[in-house]
Amino acid sequence: MPNLTNRRIVLASRPSGAPRLSDFRLEQSPVPELGDGEVLLRTLWLSLDPYMRGRMNAAQSYANPVEVGGIMVGGTVSEVIASKHPKFVSGDIVLGYAGWQDYAVSTEGALRKLDPQAAPISTALGVLGMPGMTAYTGLLTIGHPKVGETVVVAAASGPVGSLVGQIAKLKGCRAVGIAGGAAKCQYLTDELGFDAAIDHRSQRFADDLKAACPRGIDIYFENVGGAVWDAVAPLLNDFARVPVCGLIAHYNMTKLPAGPDLTPQLFFRILTKRLTVRGFIVSDFNDQREAFTRDVGGWLRDGKIKYKEDVVDGLQNAPQAFLGLLEGRNFGKLLVRVNAPSGSA
Amino acid sequence: MPNLTNRRIVLASRPSGAPRLSDFRLEQSPVPELGDGEVLLRTLWLSLDPYMRGRMNAAQSYANPVEVGGIMVGGTVSEVIASKHPKFVSGDIVLGYAGWQDYAVSTEGALRKLDPQAAPISTALGVLGMPGMTAYTGLLTIGHPKVGETVVVAAASGPVGSLVGQIAKLKGCRAVGIAGGAAKCQYLTDELGFDAAIDHRSQRFADDLKAACPRGIDIYFENVGGAVWDAVAPLLNDFARVPVCGLIAHYNMTKLPAGPDLTPQLFFRILTKRLTVRGFIVSDFNDQREAFTRDVGGWLRDGKIKYKEDVVDGLQNAPQAFLGLLEGRNFGKLLVRVNAPSGSA
Repeated sequence: MPNLTNRRIVLASRPSGAPRLSDFRLEQSPVPELGDGEVLLRTLWLSLDPYMRGRMNAAQSYANPVEVGGIMVGGTVSEVIASKHPKFVSGDIVLGYAGWQDYAVSTEGALRKLDPQAAPISTALGVLGMPGMTAYTGLLTIGHPKVGETVVVAAASGPVGSLVGQIAKLKGCRAVGIAGGAAKCQYLTDELGFDAAIDHRSQRFADDLKAACPRGIDIYFENVGGAVWDAVAPLLNDFARVPVCGLIAHYNMTKLPAGPDLTPQLFFRILTKRLTVRGFIVSDFNDQREAFTRDVGGWLRDGKIKYKEDVVDGLQNAPQAFLGLLEGRNFGKLLVRVNAPSGSA
Repeated sequence: MPNLTNRRIVLASRPSGAPRLSDFRLEQSPVPELGDGEVLLRTLWLSLDPYMRGRMNAAQSYANPVEVGGIMVGGTVSEVIASKHPKFVSGDIVLGYAGWQDYAVSTEGALRKLDPQAAPISTALGVLGMPGMTAYTGLLTIGHPKVGETVVVAAASGPVGSLVGQIAKLKGCRAVGIAGGAAKCQYLTDELGFDAAIDHRSQRFADDLKAACPRGIDIYFENVGGAVWDAVAPLLNDFARVPVCGLIAHYNMTKLPAGPDLTPQLFFRILTKRLTVRGFIVSDFNDQREAFTRDVGGWLRDGKIKYKEDVVDGLQNAPQAFLGLLEGRNFGKLLVRVNAPSGSA
């Protein structure tokens, strides 16, 4: 495809603390020729997710860092526009991991075909994708929600938190969401059916949370850390479960908080309340993909769960949108509409 | 029994930091009359255990504190010397929770009859009692040891740690014990079959531990906290399990350690390594008593596990022995021989 120019956003420099726009760079390059067994993808949707902040650091985590000068990683929904693989034809819609760019050459193993009739294709990056499966597996496998228990989740209007709360309701629990600002809180209670929603920006945050959890907290789905954890911890009941899938409050941290060191206090809490605190990455639960797709797909078709997308147009706007995500400015699953499908051109 | 005088050790004052002998007081009182359904016990063996330090504080934990002026609590093996209950006769040996005293009036629900032919009766306070069951349930139920994994335990010459290591070996794991001093370390490797033993008093402790765990740590049985945790944490493998049953390094802590606050670092470790950190109290696993008695009793009879007792004579010496326990001066399960059985009087 020598006629096509690929735009891609690379990591220009490693941020110290909060990333800046100058840490990203838009580059252009020709689209490479396809080899046998390869397919050429045009990105339709790019997912922006908090974990990407970790990939911008040099430190090895559970995944390799993005190299300086390398393309920012990210989940994508793409259209096949050329194929030298017998299983794919032009027009196929696929889920992949093409990153922040217009075009990508890919192979079969990295792709999963989507059925545009089954659900809007963007949901493969949200409620029916990685964030949804994070909520489903963490809450059910680590949280073990029981009828009448209280489930608390932060970033509750986001794609993970909103599903955690809605599944908690389906399991007969009291669902309490934490979010930033009145609009998000109203959405949680009025649209998603949370029993209570607490604004973490309020001066009364800790008191409000306590009032919303009159029987304490049995499951705290941890995707935030920081001040939210500090408010949650004293409310945890005996035998509470804390699935840990993210710590967005700390992602831009350049040094540890001042003392005293509260680690012994945390261990005492774990001991005396017999807490289970367990970290997980969604891929640890790949064996649950079928159950997830069946259950959440079914709830979605039956209207038992809802989702919200926050769409930004244009690849060039991805860095700004990502900075907003780290500050909680998005409202719903943050997606970049990179290109329109060819049929609608 | 109006002829008998009861000696009892009460909490004279709540310690701030390390307890002192003056925090205990030996009192004498008449032994009360028996009511219907009651039995009179003479204490033969009193168990001294680290958890008692927590009971000396005013704060409610998973159990009520000892009141100032109240008898220090503790597990006991006693002889029934009078009975107004049809199920007990004089001479019966029972496991109970009579505390730091010579005599106690008790009822059926608080007692379990022991068979002196099955095992030495003192083992009901150690390898076949609460400490043994703590090791068995925590390691197996939370730790899930798999063949070839590395299990690390501190206070490894004590009744919990020594059994953790020996069960780990029976399950095909590499067992690494941490203890204070050369004699205890030699005991772990030469007598109990640990693969390695590390002296936490050494300047090279963290390096020695790392060298003893060439494939990292899959299970860390946490009963200590503090500097041992600091050395263990960087060595934990992905998906490591950390049963938490005690934190003796912090029991005398009067204020939190100086900063920085390492809590975020701990949460990052839990997240990126997908750790499971879970607190437990042995009574949470009462449904495993039968399996514990069958398995550990069997291993003991077959000579597959060993145990060591550190016996102090005389109730009046219990406070001094307890202070030594908090400093790691005991070597093996610490027991007070309070009275001889009547048959040997």
